[in-house]
Amino acid sequence: MNSLTIRNVRPMGGEATSVILRDGRIAAFGDEVREGEEILDGAGAILIPGLVEAHTHMDKTLLGMGWYRNEVGPRLIDKIDNERMQRRVLGIDPARQSARQAVLAASLGTTHIRTHVDVDTEVGVAGIEGVLETREHYRDMVDIELVAFPQSGMLIRPGTVELMERALQLGAQVVGGLDPAGIDRDPKGHLDVVFGLAEKYGVPVDIHLHEPAELGAFSMELIIERTKALGLQGKVTISHAFCLGMTDQDYVATLIDALAQAQIHILTTAPSSRPAPAVKRLMEAGIVVAAGSDGVRDTWGPYNNPDMLERAVLVGLRNNLRRDDEVALALDTSTYGGARMMGLVDYGLDPGCRADLVLLDGETLAEAVVDRRPRRMVIKSGKVIARDGTALIAAP
Amino acid sequence: MNSLTIRNVRPMGGEATSVILRDGRIAAFGDEVREGEEILDGAGAILIPGLVEAHTHMDKTLLGMGWYRNEVGPRLIDKIDNERMQRRVLGIDPARQSARQAVLAASLGTTHIRTHVDVDTEVGVAGIEGVLETREHYRDMVDIELVAFPQSGMLIRPGTVELMERALQLGAQVVGGLDPAGIDRDPKGHLDVVFGLAEKYGVPVDIHLHEPAELGAFSMELIIERTKALGLQGKVTISHAFCLGMTDQDYVATLIDALAQAQIHILTTAPSSRPAPAVKRLMEAGIVVAAGSDGVRDTWGPYNNPDMLERAVLVGLRNNLRRDDEVALALDTSTYGGARMMGLVDYGLDPGCRADLVLLDGETLAEAVVDRRPRRMVIKSGKVIARDGTALIAAP
Repeated sequence: MNSLTIRNVRPMGGEATSVILRDGRIAAFGDEVREGEEILDGAGAILIPGLVEAHTHMDKTLLGMGWYRNEVGPRLIDKIDNERMQRRVLGIDPARQSARQAVLAASLGTTHIRTHVDVDTEVGVAGIEGVLETREHYRDMVDIELVAFPQSGMLIRPGTVELMERALQLGAQVVGGLDPAGIDRDPKGHLDVVFGLAEKYGVPVDIHLHEPAELGAFSMELIIERTKALGLQGKVTISHAFCLGMTDQDYVATLIDALAQAQIHILTTAPSSRPAPAVKRLMEAGIVVAAGSDGVRDTWGPYNNPDMLERAVLVGLRNNLRRDDEVALALDTSTYGGARMMGLVDYGLDPGCRADLVLLDGETLAEAVVDRRPRRMVIKSGKVIARDGTALIAAP
Repeated sequence: MNSLTIRNVRPMGGEATSVILRDGRIAAFGDEVREGEEILDGAGAILIPGLVEAHTHMDKTLLGMGWYRNEVGPRLIDKIDNERMQRRVLGIDPARQSARQAVLAASLGTTHIRTHVDVDTEVGVAGIEGVLETREHYRDMVDIELVAFPQSGMLIRPGTVELMERALQLGAQVVGGLDPAGIDRDPKGHLDVVFGLAEKYGVPVDIHLHEPAELGAFSMELIIERTKALGLQGKVTISHAFCLGMTDQDYVATLIDALAQAQIHILTTAPSSRPAPAVKRLMEAGIVVAAGSDGVRDTWGPYNNPDMLERAVLVGLRNNLRRDDEVALALDTSTYGGARMMGLVDYGLDPGCRADLVLLDGETLAEAVVDRRPRRMVIKSGKVIARDGTALIAAP
């Protein structure tokens, strides 16, 4: 039996104890170490469950590829078209690049990732195949869930729907979508295809919704209607959902009620230059809120990195979460919120949960979040996979 | 003659060269090293002028004091009142605390700081005296400029104006102010005192203006009127200026024109949870825009740290500055913008400028900003004062 005890850790910043891991799960807390079991010293570090990266694009990060000089135009379509072009020009290999991000993320304490992988008539399903390779190769380090993502639109690019089906057959676990009005110019048509695939393949849905204000709200209503009609409560995520940051507060309240009823999850990157969902208000309405890094150092922009503690800080800043209990809420979007969104079972610090854990430096949980020091230790399925900010397996 | 040559540095990320420092200034670029002069290897690092922290509160940071559990109420006045109380309860020593922040900031490459120091009827000028002590003690490490800052109001707390005068007599170099309507409830009265002190002592003005939208705009107009009436063009800064982020774009345009005419500078922390000035638009109108960390780990909130590269990232995120040329603009708020705001002469990378320099790791300037790695080397007045992220003088 594979076992490991870590002495002197403080779960969520509380009282020091030992955590005993057996067969990849948390067996118990306390001092019931058995003879012959391996023991490590936690040195008073804070113990939290593995960080959850609930929205990124691992197939197209430029990590390790030399600096990309960004001279892209201001519109969404400029960035989408430029990216398809740069994929050829720069030679962005989805397997290699997703592996780089997987290792970096793991070194930062991320144990679960949902990644949206481009599917379009140029790249076909090569991105899916590359990230599936990474998922398999690094399976002992991090769990990766793939969303088949029609970044360039579906209906405006004939052949894309068939490629989306192929992606789901190959092993993508979630069907994605994108700005049903803004890109495909056909909200009903786009969403009927997305939800049709969800029904046919029995997979959850995760839709990028950048559409602003009342336009985004209309698309959101169409998503809510389909979620309820198909009994997909708890299986649908709306990513970004900028429209929830619109000024018409009565309309926002109506949408929040409807989202809560349909058990739709909201994913935010806490963008500071856009209207954005109010995290605490959504949580208070009972909606699951998760956080993601979005694209990490890609052709869209240079700032994002896959540190989910930094993302918690950005969520905190964006939502003015200053008090210690509020910082804990911000961290929740990078831990339990992401886990609930992805439907992870056995996630957390209870005995019986998977032993996916991070040891953080800090006097309190809030200090650990705001300081974002190199992670003392990262544990995946009961095994140490990173120490002091460095993964024990190298990236390509 | 005190001299130092650093070989193989890339000014602003450009071609590699040597920089020769003599008597605390940049003497030349190139290879004219004289016999007997000290030589260091820059190893290809990017050379930038010292970072400028243009708005902070060093007298009340809690750095090194153990974690403060924040349970403060939501209103501005809650935070102000709580802080005055905690000053006594926690024993926040302005000399010790400002020294800690000075050393940390210097280790991060900051060579100039403008700090707003509380003056009120409880602390009197003890904060000013403490920070003056730090200014003197660490003068070879970082230049510190003090703003006499009536955090708790002036007119509503009789005796404060006299203390403000005393602060200026003791050595504060700038007169501060705060939400003339919101706190003192008397915009004309408050601003007449602030500008009266500026005239009497011949000092610049820096006013905290959190007031939102049309209310803030009214206070801003009063500031503009007084700036022009007293011939203080180029000597006045408005900090925060949230009202410039209001929705009435025609009104914003009018204000920007008036600010540019009066040569009033704008300081932003790039807050993501508040409306905020549009940095690029202000720059295009010819307005000097500087950046600051605001309070660092204090009773107001836990997130801020004094890293002016991180602040440039936050400015970039807040203002959607994605292209490389735009990232350079974001950095400008942490360098040249702050220097112009503070009226620093001899700042920059030209021969003759003060040798206040930072060596950064990164392939390009944009990468150095977004990566924020430990600073390779920090130089103040021609002498190395920090290496690899660690200051050569310890903090108390």
